[in-house]
Amino acid sequence: MKLADLTTPALVVDARVFEDNISAMARALPGRRLRPHVKAHKCTALAARQAQRGHRGFTCATIREMEGMAAAGLGEDLLLANEVVDARRLGAIDARVTLAVDSEATVDAAADGGVREVLIDVNVGLPRCGCPPEAAGRLADAARARGLEVRGVMGYEGHLMLQGDARERERGVSDSMEKLLASHRDVGGEVISAGGTGTYAMNRVATEIQAGSYALMDTAYSALELPFRPALTLLARVISVSPDYAVADCGLKALGMDHGNPHIADARVWFCSDEHVTFAPESPVAVGDAIRVWPAHVDPTLAYHERLHIADGETVIDHWPVDLRGW
Amino acid sequence: MKLADLTTPALVVDARVFEDNISAMARALPGRRLRPHVKAHKCTALAARQAQRGHRGFTCATIREMEGMAAAGLGEDLLLANEVVDARRLGAIDARVTLAVDSEATVDAAADGGVREVLIDVNVGLPRCGCPPEAAGRLADAARARGLEVRGVMGYEGHLMLQGDARERERGVSDSMEKLLASHRDVGGEVISAGGTGTYAMNRVATEIQAGSYALMDTAYSALELPFRPALTLLARVISVSPDYAVADCGLKALGMDHGNPHIADARVWFCSDEHVTFAPESPVAVGDAIRVWPAHVDPTLAYHERLHIADGETVIDHWPVDLRGW
Repeated sequence: MKLADLTTPALVVDARVFEDNISAMARALPGRRLRPHVKAHKCTALAARQAQRGHRGFTCATIREMEGMAAAGLGEDLLLANEVVDARRLGAIDARVTLAVDSEATVDAAADGGVREVLIDVNVGLPRCGCPPEAAGRLADAARARGLEVRGVMGYEGHLMLQGDARERERGVSDSMEKLLASHRDVGGEVISAGGTGTYAMNRVATEIQAGSYALMDTAYSALELPFRPALTLLARVISVSPDYAVADCGLKALGMDHGNPHIADARVWFCSDEHVTFAPESPVAVGDAIRVWPAHVDPTLAYHERLHIADGETVIDHWPVDLRGW
Repeated sequence: MKLADLTTPALVVDARVFEDNISAMARALPGRRLRPHVKAHKCTALAARQAQRGHRGFTCATIREMEGMAAAGLGEDLLLANEVVDARRLGAIDARVTLAVDSEATVDAAADGGVREVLIDVNVGLPRCGCPPEAAGRLADAARARGLEVRGVMGYEGHLMLQGDARERERGVSDSMEKLLASHRDVGGEVISAGGTGTYAMNRVATEIQAGSYALMDTAYSALELPFRPALTLLARVISVSPDYAVADCGLKALGMDHGNPHIADARVWFCSDEHVTFAPESPVAVGDAIRVWPAHVDPTLAYHERLHIADGETVIDHWPVDLRGW
């Protein structure tokens, strides 16, 4: 099958770029040093390639992702790096399940739901989940009192992930990881889980890095001079042409828009509608022409699509279901 | 089942508000005067309620929507109000199918794909699809020469839909519909299809209005003083609480973000992450609390979800699959 035969809009993965990305990461962080985050792709077929490169533990953001990974035989060591208030579905998963907790309520949810292992989630600077660093030890005690195995700590320095100045980023990571280390002294356990694609190379405290974006890469990371290249584009077709602009068949329901409009090479994007992008191309285009659209944010883009089409040049060599969507 | 039993994030439709909305529209534009746009909800169960109110023709934005509506027995008169470059799947649908065309290439696609009826799509001011008004007659001739039945014209005045000043909006609609009327004189046929929720009451030229948002309503329309109220909220749960803010379990993969952050009553939304919203509530909240989140844009929000939960107060009375997603 050729790219030209795909129903548009269609998400296309450049197989070689993807392979280069996961090879580069497997060299930098082999085996257990990386716990790939599946939220970045929501695709067990892609996760299986990461496992083939030696990464056997995975990070998830939703219960559905945990269930799907287990069902796909990738449940050797699954971490839900997020709090839940009802853990019963997690307790029922036939896999090794570790759950983030950051409060007594979420400790209780873990224990009541039949989860056996937890990480104490520590706030290291991002205003999101995580207990204050000084509360981590007490929370670990509470978890152990409920019969939970505390494997260690996690703390996501997400506020630094897109910091453009590498030295500033490194300084920020160092500050954040100092907090996490202090918490770890109070908590104990073997695991210090942290990091992401933007900080994977400078976080030397974490025993495992939770990077996900590196596999398909996000345009937002392009300023950071990382050894990964964008592998994902949205294939669309021109359906209407006017003297000043053209319209292609992808829009708000095919693109994560929180980082703004997508990018089209040699064109200026005017705006997106539900199923259209209006753009001004530098050179004339014709109805039926295929164009490549670069989403401004890959993760929420993927969540709109049923499958990824894997391409070697113009040939579609595989189709991978985006099978971890929903909750 | 109670709302409290739903897995979050969950889209919830207030059944009474929804019924009020579709009743109000059925009174204003009975039967064929309205051709509800299913892109606003992508849900055949919801479309069936619109059909019960007397609207038997529907507007779609994608081929998948057309196929799904036909499969659900709602194919009495389906309009794909969008151009396609490959109409073979449309030609295979067992339903009355009408397709928008705005160029010779899309006329050819319609004829080659086995579509029998078309509308000439005219640009009435929105820089998107549609031929120039003066080209409509010639295009109708080309369509008839290819054996297509030309039912009339359509022209979407989408650039006016959110114009806050009602008089300005009315003046704009009048200008746009003058262009469409002129095209219609050149094209012929019984159908003049146009309009939307923002202009349904002031567009007196169209023989049928393509409104969709009115059923669930969008917060963006709230400034327009329409007789429809927002019926859709996203139910989420608080999973983490800090002194200055709280975090709930819905984020970028549950919310269309092109209109910006969602709204939470009595709270200020700080930012959304993939599966989180960080917000500052005016009154304390606790882990496990349910909150209602109002998406900034309903249409792309719906496209992330598998189903709508229909609620009467705190009781969930039905679940409707969002079964027209994808392409």
